[in-house]
Amino acid sequence: MGPVQIKQLLKDAQVGQSVVVKGWVRTKRESKNAIFIAINDGSTIHNIQAVAAPGEIPDDTLRLITTGSCLNVTGQLVESLGSGQAVEVKIESVEVYGTADPDHYPLQPKKHSLEFLREIAHLRPRTNTFGAILRLRHALAFAVHKYYNDNGFFYLHTPIITASDAEGAGEMFRVTTLDLYNPPKNEEGKIDFSEDFFGREANLTVSGQLEGELGALALSKIYTFGPTFRAENSNTTRHLAEFWMIEPEMAFFELEDNMDLAEDFVKYVISYALEHCADDLAFLEKRQAEEEKNKPQTERSMPLLEKLRFVVENPFERLTYTEAIEILLKCKPHKEKKFQYPVEWGIDLQSEHERYLVEKHFKKPVILTNYPREIKAFYMKLDEDGKTVRAMDVLFPGIGEIIGGSQREENYDKLLERVHEVGIEPENLWWYLETRQFGTAPHAGFGLGFERLVLFVSGMGNIRDVIPFPRYPKSAEF
Amino acid sequence: MGPVQIKQLLKDAQVGQSVVVKGWVRTKRESKNAIFIAINDGSTIHNIQAVAAPGEIPDDTLRLITTGSCLNVTGQLVESLGSGQAVEVKIESVEVYGTADPDHYPLQPKKHSLEFLREIAHLRPRTNTFGAILRLRHALAFAVHKYYNDNGFFYLHTPIITASDAEGAGEMFRVTTLDLYNPPKNEEGKIDFSEDFFGREANLTVSGQLEGELGALALSKIYTFGPTFRAENSNTTRHLAEFWMIEPEMAFFELEDNMDLAEDFVKYVISYALEHCADDLAFLEKRQAEEEKNKPQTERSMPLLEKLRFVVENPFERLTYTEAIEILLKCKPHKEKKFQYPVEWGIDLQSEHERYLVEKHFKKPVILTNYPREIKAFYMKLDEDGKTVRAMDVLFPGIGEIIGGSQREENYDKLLERVHEVGIEPENLWWYLETRQFGTAPHAGFGLGFERLVLFVSGMGNIRDVIPFPRYPKSAEF
Repeated sequence: MGPVQIKQLLKDAQVGQSVVVKGWVRTKRESKNAIFIAINDGSTIHNIQAVAAPGEIPDDTLRLITTGSCLNVTGQLVESLGSGQAVEVKIESVEVYGTADPDHYPLQPKKHSLEFLREIAHLRPRTNTFGAILRLRHALAFAVHKYYNDNGFFYLHTPIITASDAEGAGEMFRVTTLDLYNPPKNEEGKIDFSEDFFGREANLTVSGQLEGELGALALSKIYTFGPTFRAENSNTTRHLAEFWMIEPEMAFFELEDNMDLAEDFVKYVISYALEHCADDLAFLEKRQAEEEKNKPQTERSMPLLEKLRFVVENPFERLTYTEAIEILLKCKPHKEKKFQYPVEWGIDLQSEHERYLVEKHFKKPVILTNYPREIKAFYMKLDEDGKTVRAMDVLFPGIGEIIGGSQREENYDKLLERVHEVGIEPENLWWYLETRQFGTAPHAGFGLGFERLVLFVSGMGNIRDVIPFPRYPKSAEF
Repeated sequence: MGPVQIKQLLKDAQVGQSVVVKGWVRTKRESKNAIFIAINDGSTIHNIQAVAAPGEIPDDTLRLITTGSCLNVTGQLVESLGSGQAVEVKIESVEVYGTADPDHYPLQPKKHSLEFLREIAHLRPRTNTFGAILRLRHALAFAVHKYYNDNGFFYLHTPIITASDAEGAGEMFRVTTLDLYNPPKNEEGKIDFSEDFFGREANLTVSGQLEGELGALALSKIYTFGPTFRAENSNTTRHLAEFWMIEPEMAFFELEDNMDLAEDFVKYVISYALEHCADDLAFLEKRQAEEEKNKPQTERSMPLLEKLRFVVENPFERLTYTEAIEILLKCKPHKEKKFQYPVEWGIDLQSEHERYLVEKHFKKPVILTNYPREIKAFYMKLDEDGKTVRAMDVLFPGIGEIIGGSQREENYDKLLERVHEVGIEPENLWWYLETRQFGTAPHAGFGLGFERLVLFVSGMGNIRDVIPFPRYPKSAEF
């Protein structure tokens, strides 16, 4: 079905073979002896070059062949005399499917800023950079599914719309069909949400974890991979209002198993990308180097492929929060008061602290565990000392926290105590609490923000550039 | 990481081997000579039987081992003397992770209605039926990703929150962070959506198609697989407010290619399930037969596996809408006025008409094409006669429309005319229209409702039972 993709042509086609190439013109170049047209169909970063002698393409047609126009070329695959490609297409006929008027088509062959490209997110997948990112994103997503499928996990679709507002993971978006001009009110003048679509207040999920636990306590090993939402007014390079999360939950896993899984998983998907996206990663590595060439040597990133291989090949450093605080208290930036935020046991580690540990002290990914209970979520299992919980954060260079997880509190009484402590109404979570009354089991899980992973693997600097249509404050175009 | 799953134990473990089994008790049976405990961990429909001689398990522990309790059993794998299993576990020690008080645990070993189980959706994955459905759902989802990955498609995450309200595919849910008690208003008394989170009105997507087309017109072949929403007050066995859609879009595909892809794709995923979910499908086949045993012979479904093999092994019937109308006009139920709705060219086919074609006339899946333009969406490519569009609906027995798609209108002028005709503001779709001005190409795509697929393959009767946590009017629990 459909034409052979350029990726396949470049790989498999034989010289002498008749071929049909359908794709978009990247550049057209006319010399005295030939016309060269570079065509790309998005299947690969590489173009295929189509060549004709002057006069072979009628003038009326040739005029329409400009950057961005779409062509249907038939011809013969021949050895290329030029450098840069082994084969090219000797054009026999060209049909122009669609023109792209150079006076109006914004993607002319020159450098465009990422900010500008964000404004034309409907067209940016046609650029080298975004083609590479989207192919990489696909490969990483597929690797996620393959990893969990191969390891006996079941993909669980947890709900997007939820009436449970108890997770406390962040600000939520309301979902409603009420008439905002005239919402129904009850006798006390309160809005009568029993008349809303779901018969109660409903929001977009901030995490599938709690429902994921329900799955794990039946199927043993599940994972989610779906969109999650935060209505936070954050205009940073690290936050989106809508992003995709991967959340495995496993019955009979304790904290150690959870760390082993997180490390094995993230190494697998990065290895998969290294194997399947070599061309796109090579391009992205060059792009990053180009981007950073004006920075002082010390501020430049490690070359992309080197960074990825380093993560795959080295064991992550594992230590407790308490040990991390000890390191930070003894470190130079702390002693010289270079940190903006103070260091003491009990603080929520700031980005500067995490970066010191990962980038300066250990120089590799770090898994921090056993955080103070006060700074972590109610569902994390209490350690025996009652002061810390079996949390784990995986910290990556340049990104900070890429994975957050924990062993879950499986003891009903302890969980209920924590629920009260943080001020959640137990009735709102009756179903979650019941799993601790009926056949409870030790279990654990974690969440990985998919865009943070793509950010890390692609070497891009802004999370808005690693999702096709980013959502952030004041932006829901396309 | 974690214990070996029961599925693996039953397949690979050797008699004599020491094993650890972690899972939930399905049944406990005590005879004079032995105690039998059936344990399930959700990895398979099959239980593993654990056996102890009377007195080997301390009374205090034995009392706690009831249906639904969670156990950690160590023992030795031995040949089973009983029927129904080749091996069983001779218990050496048992730890009870979690009890399930028989006076309160709702899932006692007896038949529960599907309606009752919907009310305890947090626990129903622990039943045989829902375990089977969720494993099947996983396998089908994985098959979707594998099919598209293997065929050169890229998984594109289209946005969930969207400010575009132009698709007209159905009623939408509003997404907002405004204070419903006191929404900001402008001078004219209108709600000032520029103060809402996204600076404008925003909704939950009804389809990723339009954004999918943007991807296809850059990467050639993409697919989406994500949640979509309808705020329709439908309380039927076929509708959900939140459901998952798969939407491939392909540049350079015309209607024929689109049909070929749809047929090949759906056959692939069903074949995959037949191969990978044999045990669960055998169980679901029995369940369906049991469910229907009181129906008259003529109203019973074809046995599940037979039905699935039939779909996989036979070519789908392809005909135009016009040909279908001719068949309907000549058919007995029409002549005998047995149809509730009249038949004439131009009507939107009703379920009774589709079922007649699929179940009585052709007795196999049917692809109908070239529908009247008036009853189809604005983005479908006009046929040359100007009366019909290059739409295609794939109709399945028992389900009706499982796939709807079309070749897309790639001609800017014709598309704009249709946009005006259906009353959409072109400014709201500027980005979509631009793809027809810059390098437009023939392209096509379709949408498959994932839950309808699971419904068909599982033989279940209600769509609320093939998604873990169904959302429908007045229901967003869990």
